[in-house]
Amino acid sequence: MAEAGGISIHGVDIAKGVAAAGLGVELWALAPQRRLVAAGALGTNGLLDHPTARGEGIVAGPYEVVFALGAWLRANGYGPRETAFLDVVPFRFVVSDPAQHYHLPFKFTPWGIQLFRGV
Amino acid sequence: MAEAGGISIHGVDIAKGVAAAGLGVELWALAPQRRLVAAGALGTNGLLDHPTARGEGIVAGPYEVVFALGAWLRANGYGPRETAFLDVVPFRFVVSDPAQHYHLPFKFTPWGIQLFRGV
Amino acid sequence: MAEAGGISIHGVDIAKGVAAAGLGVELWALAPQRRLVAAGALGTNGLLDHPTARGEGIVAGPYEVVFALGAWLRANGYGPRETAFLDVVPFRFVVSDPAQHYHLPFKFTPWGIQLFRGV
Amino acid sequence: MAEAGGISIHGVDIAKGVAAAGLGVELWALAPQRRLVAAGALGTNGLLDHPTARGEGIVAGPYEVVFALGAWLRANGYGPRETAFLDVVPFRFVVSDPAQHYHLPFKFTPWGIQLFRGV
Repeated sequence: MAEAGGISIHGVDIAKGVAAAGLGVELWALAPQRRLVAAGALGTNGLLDHPTARGEGIVAGPYEVVFALGAWLRANGYGPRETAFLDVVPFRFVVSDPAQHYHLPFKFTPWGIQLFRGV
Repeated sequence: MAEAGGISIHGVDIAKGVAAAGLGVELWALAPQRRLVAAGALGTNGLLDHPTARGEGIVAGPYEVVFALGAWLRANGYGPRETAFLDVVPFRFVVSDPAQHYHLPFKFTPWGIQLFRGV
Repeated sequence: MAEAGGISIHGVDIAKGVAAAGLGVELWALAPQRRLVAAGALGTNGLLDHPTARGEGIVAGPYEVVFALGAWLRANGYGPRETAFLDVVPFRFVVSDPAQHYHLPFKFTPWGIQLFRGV
Repeated sequence: MAEAGGISIHGVDIAKGVAAAGLGVELWALAPQRRLVAAGALGTNGLLDHPTARGEGIVAGPYEVVFALGAWLRANGYGPRETAFLDVVPFRFVVSDPAQHYHLPFKFTPWGIQLFRGV
Protein backbone atom coordinates (compact mmCIF):
# COMPACT_ATOMS: atom_id res chain seq x y z
CA MET A 1 0.00 0.00 0.00
CA ALA A 2 3.00 2.27 -0.45
CA GLU A 3 2.50 5.02 -3.01
CA ALA A 4 5.94 5.95 -4.35
CA GLY A 5 8.38 3.86 -6.32
CA GLY A 6 10.46 1.12 -4.79
CA ILE A 7 10.39 -2.59 -4.10
CA SER A 8 8.87 -3.62 -0.78
CA ILE A 9 9.16 -7.19 0.43
CA HIS A 10 6.80 -8.78 2.94
CA GLY A 11 6.82 -12.34 4.21
CA VAL A 12 4.08 -14.33 5.92
CA ASP A 13 4.09 -17.96 7.05
CA ILE A 14 0.51 -18.94 6.19
CA ALA A 15 0.94 -22.35 7.82
CA LYS A 16 1.38 -20.74 11.25
CA GLY A 17 -0.33 -17.44 10.59
CA VAL A 18 2.67 -15.31 11.53
CA ALA A 19 4.87 -12.69 9.90
CA ALA A 20 8.17 -14.19 8.79
CA ALA A 21 10.27 -12.15 11.21
CA GLY A 22 13.94 -12.85 10.66
CA LEU A 23 13.57 -14.34 7.19
CA GLY A 24 16.75 -13.65 5.26
CA VAL A 25 16.19 -11.84 1.99
CA GLU A 26 18.46 -10.67 -0.80
CA LEU A 27 17.43 -8.44 -3.70
CA TRP A 28 19.54 -8.77 -6.83
CA ALA A 29 19.48 -6.69 -9.99
CA LEU A 30 20.07 -9.08 -12.88
CA ALA A 31 21.17 -6.61 -15.57
CA PRO A 32 23.51 -5.42 -16.90
CA GLN A 33 25.12 -7.95 -14.55
CA ARG A 34 24.00 -9.68 -11.35
CA ARG A 35 24.44 -7.19 -8.52
CA LEU A 36 23.22 -7.26 -4.91
CA VAL A 37 21.09 -4.21 -4.16
CA ALA A 38 19.64 -5.10 -0.77
CA ALA A 39 20.03 -7.76 1.88
CA GLY A 40 18.66 -8.21 5.36
CA ALA A 41 16.18 -9.98 7.55
CA LEU A 42 12.46 -9.23 7.66
CA GLY A 43 11.30 -7.29 10.69
CA THR A 44 8.67 -8.32 13.21
CA ASN A 45 6.03 -6.80 10.92
CA GLY A 46 7.20 -9.06 8.10
CA LEU A 47 8.66 -6.20 6.06
CA LEU A 48 12.21 -5.58 4.89
CA ASP A 49 13.23 -2.17 6.16
CA HIS A 50 15.58 -0.94 3.47
CA PRO A 51 15.96 2.22 1.33
CA THR A 52 15.05 0.23 -1.80
CA ALA A 53 11.51 0.08 -0.42
CA ARG A 54 11.41 3.88 -0.89
CA GLY A 55 12.87 3.59 -4.36
CA GLU A 56 16.53 4.26 -3.65
CA GLY A 57 18.69 2.72 -6.33
CA ILE A 58 15.83 1.05 -8.20
CA VAL A 59 16.04 1.37 -11.95
CA ALA A 60 14.16 -0.42 -14.71
CA GLY A 61 15.24 -3.98 -15.36
CA PRO A 62 14.99 -7.55 -14.15
CA TYR A 63 15.39 -8.40 -10.46
CA GLU A 64 15.49 -11.48 -8.30
CA VAL A 65 14.51 -11.75 -4.67
CA VAL A 66 16.10 -14.69 -2.89
CA PHE A 67 14.45 -15.96 0.29
CA ALA A 68 16.48 -18.10 2.70
CA LEU A 69 13.38 -20.13 3.48
CA GLY A 70 14.94 -23.43 4.51
CA ALA A 71 17.09 -21.76 7.14
CA TRP A 72 14.10 -19.83 8.46
CA LEU A 73 11.93 -22.94 8.70
CA ARG A 74 14.66 -24.81 10.59
CA ALA A 75 15.06 -21.86 12.97
CA ASN A 76 11.32 -21.63 13.57
CA GLY A 77 10.35 -25.04 14.83
CA TYR A 78 9.83 -26.99 11.65
CA GLY A 79 11.14 -30.54 11.66
CA PRO A 80 13.14 -32.60 9.18
CA ARG A 81 10.18 -33.66 7.02
CA GLU A 82 8.99 -30.06 6.70
CA THR A 83 12.38 -28.56 5.87
CA ALA A 84 13.31 -31.02 3.13
CA PHE A 85 11.35 -29.56 0.21
CA LEU A 86 12.17 -25.86 0.03
CA ASP A 87 15.54 -24.31 0.72
CA VAL A 88 16.64 -21.16 -1.08
CA VAL A 89 13.66 -19.72 -2.96
CA PRO A 90 14.13 -17.22 -5.81
CA PHE A 91 11.43 -14.97 -7.25
CA ARG A 92 12.24 -13.21 -10.50
CA PHE A 93 10.38 -10.19 -11.85
CA VAL A 94 10.82 -7.07 -13.95
CA VAL A 95 10.59 -3.42 -12.95
CA SER A 96 9.36 -1.77 -16.13
CA ASP A 97 8.50 1.58 -14.56
CA PRO A 98 10.58 2.70 -11.56
CA ALA A 99 7.96 5.34 -10.72
CA GLN A 100 5.57 2.54 -9.78
CA HIS A 101 5.74 0.77 -6.47
CA TYR A 102 6.36 -2.98 -6.51
CA HIS A 103 4.97 -4.58 -3.38
CA LEU A 104 5.92 -8.24 -3.14
CA PRO A 105 3.88 -10.12 -0.54
CA PHE A 106 5.53 -13.53 -0.21
CA LYS A 107 3.33 -16.16 1.40
CA PHE A 108 4.58 -19.63 2.14
CA THR A 109 4.24 -22.91 3.96
CA PRO A 110 6.93 -25.61 4.04
CA TRP A 111 5.22 -27.05 0.94
CA GLY A 112 4.98 -24.12 -1.35
CA ILE A 113 5.06 -20.47 -2.09
CA GLN A 114 2.96 -17.72 -3.52
CA LEU A 115 3.68 -14.19 -4.63
CA PHE A 116 1.20 -11.95 -6.40
CA ARG A 117 2.17 -8.31 -6.82
CA GLY A 118 0.32 -6.27 -4.25
CA VAL A 119 -1.75 -3.18 -4.84
CA MET B 1 -2.20 -37.92 -7.95
CA ALA B 2 0.55 -40.08 -9.43
CA GLU B 3 1.78 -42.79 -7.12
CA ALA B 4 5.36 -43.61 -8.13
CA GLY B 5 8.44 -41.44 -8.00
CA GLY B 6 9.08 -38.66 -10.45
CA ILE B 7 8.51 -34.95 -10.93
CA SER B 8 5.29 -33.99 -12.67
CA ILE B 9 4.72 -30.41 -13.79
CA HIS B 10 1.29 -28.91 -14.37
CA GLY B 11 0.45 -25.34 -15.38
CA VAL B 12 -2.81 -23.43 -15.08
CA ASP B 13 -3.55 -19.82 -15.96
CA ILE B 14 -5.93 -18.90 -13.12
CA ALA B 15 -6.65 -15.50 -14.67
CA LYS B 16 -8.30 -17.12 -17.69
CA GLY B 17 -9.20 -20.46 -16.16
CA VAL B 18 -7.31 -22.52 -18.73
CA ALA B 19 -4.53 -25.07 -18.76
CA ALA B 20 -1.25 -23.50 -19.84
CA ALA B 21 -0.97 -25.51 -23.05
CA GLY B 22 2.27 -24.72 -24.81
CA LEU B 23 4.02 -23.21 -21.80
CA GLY B 24 7.75 -23.83 -22.16
CA VAL B 25 9.30 -25.62 -19.21
CA GLU B 26 12.82 -26.72 -18.35
CA LEU B 27 13.77 -28.95 -15.44
CA TRP B 28 17.32 -28.54 -14.20
CA ALA B 29 19.21 -30.60 -11.64
CA LEU B 30 21.38 -28.19 -9.65
CA ALA B 31 23.93 -30.60 -8.17
CA PRO B 32 26.63 -31.71 -8.52
CA GLN B 33 26.45 -29.19 -11.36
CA ARG B 34 23.59 -27.50 -13.24
CA ARG B 35 22.30 -30.01 -15.79
CA LEU B 36 19.15 -29.98 -17.94
CA VAL B 37 17.08 -33.10 -17.29
CA ALA B 38 13.87 -32.27 -19.13
CA ALA B 39 12.52 -29.61 -21.47
CA GLY B 40 9.34 -29.21 -23.43
CA ALA B 41 5.99 -27.51 -23.68
CA LEU B 42 2.97 -28.34 -21.54
CA GLY B 43 0.27 -30.34 -23.29
CA THR B 44 -3.37 -29.39 -23.71
CA ASN B 45 -4.08 -30.94 -20.32
CA GLY B 46 -1.49 -28.64 -18.74
CA LEU B 47 0.98 -31.45 -18.01
CA LEU B 48 4.53 -31.98 -19.20
CA ASP B 49 4.65 -35.38 -20.85
CA HIS B 50 8.18 -36.54 -20.11
CA PRO B 51 9.83 -39.67 -18.65
CA THR B 52 10.94 -37.69 -15.58
CA ALA B 53 7.27 -37.62 -14.56
CA ARG B 54 7.56 -41.41 -14.16
CA GLY B 55 10.81 -41.07 -12.26
CA GLU B 56 13.33 -41.66 -15.03
CA GLY B 57 16.62 -40.05 -14.17
CA ILE B 58 15.42 -38.44 -10.95
CA VAL B 59 17.81 -38.74 -8.04
CA ALA B 60 17.93 -36.96 -4.72
CA GLY B 61 19.11 -33.37 -4.82
CA PRO B 62 18.11 -29.81 -5.62
CA TYR B 63 16.21 -28.99 -8.80
CA GLU B 64 14.91 -25.93 -10.56
CA VAL B 65 11.95 -25.70 -12.89
CA VAL B 66 12.08 -22.74 -15.24
CA PHE B 67 8.83 -21.52 -16.77
CA ALA B 68 8.96 -19.35 -19.91
CA LEU B 69 5.98 -17.42 -18.66
CA GLY B 70 6.52 -14.07 -20.40
CA ALA B 71 6.71 -15.72 -23.82
CA TRP B 72 3.57 -17.72 -23.09
CA LEU B 73 1.62 -14.66 -21.95
CA ARG B 74 2.62 -12.75 -25.07
CA ALA B 75 1.57 -15.69 -27.25
CA ASN B 76 -1.76 -16.01 -25.49
CA GLY B 77 -3.38 -12.65 -25.89
CA TYR B 78 -1.93 -10.68 -23.01
CA GLY B 79 -0.96 -7.10 -23.80
CA PRO B 80 2.09 -4.99 -22.98
CA ARG B 81 1.00 -3.98 -19.46
CA GLU B 82 0.32 -7.59 -18.54
CA THR B 83 3.54 -9.01 -19.91
CA ALA B 84 5.88 -6.52 -18.26
CA PHE B 85 6.10 -8.00 -14.76
CA LEU B 86 6.95 -11.68 -15.13
CA ASP B 87 9.26 -13.16 -17.72
CA VAL B 88 11.30 -16.28 -16.96
CA VAL B 89 10.06 -17.76 -13.67
CA PRO B 90 12.19 -20.23 -11.71
CA PHE B 91 10.95 -22.53 -8.95
CA ARG B 92 13.59 -24.24 -6.84
CA PHE B 93 12.97 -27.31 -4.67
CA VAL B 94 14.65 -30.39 -3.27
CA VAL B 95 13.96 -34.06 -3.96
CA SER B 96 14.91 -35.70 -0.69
CA ASP B 97 13.38 -39.09 -1.45
CA PRO B 98 13.26 -40.18 -5.11
CA ALA B 99 10.73 -42.90 -4.24
CA GLN B 100 8.18 -40.16 -3.55
CA HIS B 101 6.29 -38.40 -6.27
CA TYR B 102 6.73 -34.65 -6.58
CA HIS B 103 3.71 -33.10 -8.24
CA LEU B 104 4.23 -29.41 -8.98
CA PRO B 105 1.00 -27.59 -9.82
CA PHE B 106 2.05 -24.15 -11.05
CA LYS B 107 -0.74 -21.58 -11.01
CA PHE B 108 -0.26 -18.08 -12.32
CA THR B 109 -1.69 -14.83 -13.55
CA PRO B 110 0.34 -12.06 -15.20
CA TRP B 111 0.80 -10.66 -11.69
CA GLY B 112 2.04 -13.57 -9.73
CA ILE B 113 2.64 -17.21 -9.21
CA GLN B 114 1.87 -20.00 -6.83
CA LEU B 115 3.21 -23.49 -6.40
CA PHE B 116 2.32 -25.78 -3.52
CA ARG B 117 3.45 -29.38 -3.79
CA GLY B 118 0.47 -31.50 -4.76
CA VAL B 119 -0.74 -34.64 -3.04
CA MET C 1 -8.49 -33.77 -14.83
CA ALA C 2 -11.78 -35.59 -15.29
CA GLU C 3 -13.31 -35.10 -18.73
CA ALA C 4 -17.08 -35.50 -18.35
CA GLY C 5 -19.53 -33.35 -16.43
CA GLY C 6 -19.78 -33.40 -12.67
CA ILE C 7 -18.42 -31.68 -9.60
CA SER C 8 -15.27 -33.17 -8.11
CA ILE C 9 -14.01 -32.00 -4.75
CA HIS C 10 -10.41 -32.34 -3.60
CA GLY C 11 -8.87 -31.15 -0.34
CA VAL C 12 -5.24 -30.53 0.57
CA ASP C 13 -3.77 -29.19 3.80
CA ILE C 14 -0.95 -27.04 2.42
CA ALA C 15 0.37 -26.33 5.92
CA LYS C 16 1.27 -30.00 6.42
CA GLY C 17 1.50 -31.06 2.80
CA VAL C 18 -1.08 -33.81 3.09
CA ALA C 19 -4.37 -34.73 1.46
CA ALA C 20 -7.29 -33.84 3.72
CA ALA C 21 -8.37 -37.43 4.26
CA GLY C 22 -11.52 -37.54 6.35
CA LEU C 23 -12.52 -33.91 5.77
CA GLY C 24 -16.30 -33.70 5.96
CA VAL C 25 -17.91 -32.18 2.89
CA GLU C 26 -21.46 -31.35 1.89
CA LEU C 27 -22.58 -30.26 -1.57
CA TRP C 28 -25.78 -28.24 -1.66
CA ALA C 29 -27.81 -27.09 -4.64
CA LEU C 30 -29.12 -23.61 -3.81
CA ALA C 31 -31.98 -23.34 -6.32
CA PRO C 32 -34.88 -23.64 -6.65
CA GLN C 33 -34.43 -24.34 -2.93
CA ARG C 34 -31.48 -25.41 -0.77
CA ARG C 35 -31.11 -29.17 -1.19
CA LEU C 36 -28.30 -31.54 -0.15
CA VAL C 37 -26.97 -33.41 -3.18
CA ALA C 38 -23.87 -35.06 -1.73
CA ALA C 39 -22.21 -35.55 1.63
CA GLY C 40 -19.26 -37.54 2.83
CA ALA C 41 -15.65 -37.50 3.91
CA LEU C 42 -12.70 -37.08 1.58
CA GLY C 43 -10.74 -40.25 0.86
CA THR C 44 -7.05 -40.85 1.46
CA ASN C 45 -6.35 -39.35 -1.98
CA GLY C 46 -8.14 -36.16 -0.92
CA LEU C 47 -11.09 -36.72 -3.27
CA LEU C 48 -14.78 -37.12 -2.51
CA ASP C 49 -15.88 -40.40 -4.04
CA HIS C 50 -19.48 -39.70 -5.01
CA PRO C 51 -21.66 -40.10 -8.14
CA THR C 52 -21.93 -36.30 -8.44
CA ALA C 53 -18.25 -36.33 -9.46
CA ARG C 54 -19.37 -38.25 -12.57
CA GLY C 55 -22.22 -35.83 -13.17
CA GLU C 56 -25.10 -37.71 -11.57
CA GLY C 57 -27.81 -35.31 -10.52
CA ILE C 58 -25.91 -32.16 -11.48
CA VAL C 59 -27.98 -29.57 -13.28
CA ALA C 60 -27.30 -25.92 -14.04
CA GLY C 61 -27.60 -23.57 -11.12
CA PRO C 62 -25.89 -22.26 -8.00
CA TYR C 63 -24.21 -24.64 -5.55
CA GLU C 64 -22.44 -24.45 -2.23
CA VAL C 65 -19.78 -26.78 -0.92
CA VAL C 66 -19.47 -26.75 2.86
CA PHE C 67 -16.21 -27.95 4.40
CA ALA C 68 -16.18 -29.01 8.06
CA LEU C 69 -12.71 -27.58 8.43
CA GLY C 70 -12.65 -26.77 12.13
CA ALA C 71 -13.59 -30.33 13.07
CA TRP C 72 -10.93 -31.72 10.72
CA LEU C 73 -8.21 -29.46 12.12
CA ARG C 74 -9.08 -30.45 15.68
CA ALA C 75 -9.01 -34.14 14.69
CA ASN C 76 -5.65 -33.77 12.96
CA GLY C 77 -3.35 -32.41 15.60
CA TYR C 78 -3.97 -28.69 15.43
CA GLY C 79 -4.15 -26.91 18.77
CA PRO C 80 -6.51 -24.30 20.21
CA ARG C 81 -4.84 -21.27 18.62
CA GLU C 82 -4.92 -22.89 15.21
CA THR C 83 -8.51 -24.04 15.35
CA ALA C 84 -10.01 -20.74 16.45
CA PHE C 85 -10.18 -18.89 13.12
CA LEU C 86 -11.90 -21.20 10.64
CA ASP C 87 -14.78 -23.52 11.42
CA VAL C 88 -17.39 -24.35 8.80
CA VAL C 89 -16.19 -23.03 5.43
CA PRO C 90 -18.61 -22.51 2.54
CA PHE C 91 -17.63 -22.09 -1.11
CA ARG C 92 -20.36 -20.90 -3.48
CA PHE C 93 -20.23 -21.24 -7.26
CA VAL C 94 -22.43 -21.64 -10.31
CA VAL C 95 -22.70 -24.54 -12.75
CA SER C 96 -23.65 -22.81 -15.99
CA ASP C 97 -23.02 -25.78 -18.26
CA PRO C 98 -23.58 -29.26 -16.76
CA ALA C 99 -21.67 -30.83 -19.67
CA GLN C 100 -18.49 -29.24 -18.32
CA HIS C 101 -16.57 -30.71 -15.45
CA TYR C 102 -16.15 -28.59 -12.34
CA HIS C 103 -13.04 -29.63 -10.43
CA LEU C 104 -12.77 -27.84 -7.10
CA PRO C 105 -9.31 -28.13 -5.54
CA PHE C 106 -9.65 -26.75 -2.02
CA LYS C 107 -6.35 -25.82 -0.39
CA PHE C 108 -6.14 -24.61 3.17
CA THR C 109 -4.12 -23.92 6.27
CA PRO C 110 -5.63 -23.04 9.66
CA TRP C 111 -5.36 -19.39 8.55
CA GLY C 112 -7.02 -19.37 5.22
CA ILE C 113 -8.39 -21.04 2.17
CA GLN C 114 -8.05 -21.08 -1.55
CA LEU C 115 -10.10 -22.54 -4.34
CA PHE C 116 -9.46 -21.92 -8.03
CA ARG C 117 -11.41 -24.04 -10.46
CA GLY C 118 -9.15 -26.75 -11.80
CA VAL C 119 -8.48 -27.62 -15.41
CA MET D 1 -0.78 -4.32 9.23
CA ALA D 2 -3.16 -2.55 11.58
CA GLU D 3 -2.33 -3.01 15.23
CA ALA D 4 -5.58 -2.61 17.15
CA GLY D 5 -8.68 -4.77 17.08
CA GLY D 6 -11.14 -4.76 14.22
CA ILE D 7 -11.87 -6.49 10.95
CA SER D 8 -10.27 -4.93 7.87
CA ILE D 9 -11.27 -6.10 4.41
CA HIS D 10 -9.09 -5.69 1.35
CA GLY D 11 -9.79 -6.87 -2.20
CA VAL D 12 -7.41 -7.41 -5.11
CA ASP D 13 -8.15 -8.74 -8.59
CA ILE D 14 -5.03 -10.82 -9.18
CA ALA D 15 -6.05 -11.52 -12.79
CA LYS D 16 -5.73 -7.83 -13.69
CA GLY D 17 -3.38 -6.74 -10.94
CA VAL D 18 -5.67 -4.04 -9.58
CA ALA D 19 -7.35 -3.19 -6.30
CA ALA D 20 -11.02 -4.17 -6.37
CA ALA D 21 -12.29 -0.60 -6.12
CA GLY D 22 -16.08 -0.59 -5.89
CA LEU D 23 -16.43 -4.23 -4.86
CA GLY D 24 -19.56 -4.54 -2.75
CA VAL D 25 -18.98 -6.08 0.66
CA GLU D 26 -21.19 -6.97 3.58
CA LEU D 27 -20.00 -8.07 7.01
CA TRP D 28 -22.45 -10.17 8.98
CA ALA D 29 -22.27 -11.34 12.56
CA LEU D 30 -23.72 -14.85 12.66
CA ALA D 31 -24.49 -15.16 16.38
CA PRO D 32 -26.63 -14.94 18.40
CA GLN D 33 -28.51 -14.27 15.15
CA ARG D 34 -27.49 -13.14 11.67
CA ARG D 35 -27.01 -9.37 11.81
CA LEU D 36 -25.45 -6.95 9.33
CA VAL D 37 -22.61 -5.02 10.95
CA ALA D 38 -21.04 -3.30 7.94
CA ALA D 39 -21.73 -2.79 4.26
CA GLY D 40 -20.15 -0.73 1.55
CA ALA D 41 -17.90 -0.70 -1.48
CA LEU D 42 -14.13 -1.03 -1.39
CA GLY D 43 -12.21 2.19 -1.97
CA THR D 44 -9.63 2.86 -4.64
CA ASN D 45 -6.97 1.41 -2.33
CA GLY D 46 -8.98 -1.83 -2.11
CA LEU D 47 -9.94 -1.32 1.53
CA LEU D 48 -13.34 -1.01 3.14
CA ASP D 49 -13.39 2.25 5.04
CA HIS D 50 -15.67 1.47 7.96
CA PRO D 51 -15.52 1.84 11.78
CA THR D 52 -15.46 -1.96 12.15
CA ALA D 53 -11.91 -1.83 10.76
CA ARG D 54 -10.98 0.08 13.93
CA GLY D 55 -12.86 -2.41 16.10
CA GLU D 56 -16.16 -0.60 16.57
CA GLY D 57 -18.90 -3.07 17.35
CA ILE D 58 -16.73 -6.16 16.93
CA VAL D 59 -17.26 -8.79 19.61
CA ALA D 60 -16.17 -12.42 19.77
CA GLY D 61 -18.14 -14.79 17.60
CA PRO D 62 -18.60 -16.08 14.07
CA TYR D 63 -18.78 -13.69 11.13
CA GLU D 64 -19.35 -13.87 7.41
CA VAL D 65 -18.07 -11.49 4.77
CA VAL D 66 -20.09 -11.52 1.58
CA PHE D 67 -18.44 -10.27 -1.60
CA ALA D 68 -20.64 -9.24 -4.55
CA LEU D 69 -18.04 -10.59 -6.93
CA GLY D 70 -20.21 -11.42 -9.94
CA ALA D 71 -21.61 -7.90 -10.09
CA TRP D 72 -18.11 -6.44 -9.81
CA LEU D 73 -16.71 -8.63 -12.57
CA ARG D 74 -19.58 -7.69 -14.89
CA ALA D 75 -19.01 -4.01 -14.12
CA ASN D 76 -15.26 -4.28 -14.75
CA GLY D 77 -15.00 -5.60 -18.24
CA TYR D 78 -15.29 -9.32 -17.77
CA GLY D 79 -17.39 -11.15 -20.33
CA PRO D 80 -20.08 -13.81 -20.11
CA ARG D 81 -17.72 -16.80 -19.86
CA GLU D 82 -15.77 -15.16 -17.06
CA THR D 83 -18.76 -14.10 -15.01
CA ALA D 84 -20.54 -17.44 -15.02
CA PHE D 85 -18.64 -19.25 -12.27
CA LEU D 86 -18.59 -16.96 -9.24
CA ASP D 87 -21.42 -14.72 -8.12
CA VAL D 88 -21.93 -13.94 -4.44
CA VAL D 89 -18.92 -15.21 -2.49
CA PRO D 90 -19.11 -15.75 1.28
CA PHE D 91 -16.13 -16.12 3.61
CA ARG D 92 -16.87 -17.36 7.12
CA PHE D 93 -14.49 -17.00 10.08
CA VAL D 94 -14.43 -16.62 13.84
CA VAL D 95 -13.25 -13.71 15.96
CA SER D 96 -12.01 -15.44 19.11
CA ASP D 97 -10.23 -12.42 20.58
CA PRO D 98 -11.64 -8.97 19.74
CA ALA D 99 -8.39 -7.34 20.94
CA GLN D 100 -6.64 -8.86 17.94
CA HIS D 101 -6.86 -7.38 14.49
CA TYR D 102 -8.33 -9.51 11.73
CA HIS D 103 -7.03 -8.42 8.36
CA LEU D 104 -8.77 -10.20 5.51
CA PRO D 105 -6.95 -9.85 2.20
CA PHE D 106 -9.30 -11.26 -0.43
CA LYS D 107 -7.62 -12.13 -3.72
CA PHE D 108 -9.57 -13.37 -6.69
CA THR D 109 -9.80 -14.04 -10.38
CA PRO D 110 -13.03 -14.98 -12.20
CA TRP D 111 -12.05 -18.61 -11.51
CA GLY D 112 -11.40 -18.65 -7.84
CA ILE D 113 -10.69 -16.99 -4.58
CA GLN D 114 -8.19 -16.92 -1.80
CA LEU D 115 -8.18 -15.48 1.67
CA PHE D 116 -5.44 -16.05 4.23
CA ARG D 117 -5.59 -13.96 7.36
CA GLY D 118 -3.04 -11.18 7.09
CA VAL D 119 -0.36 -10.25 9.58
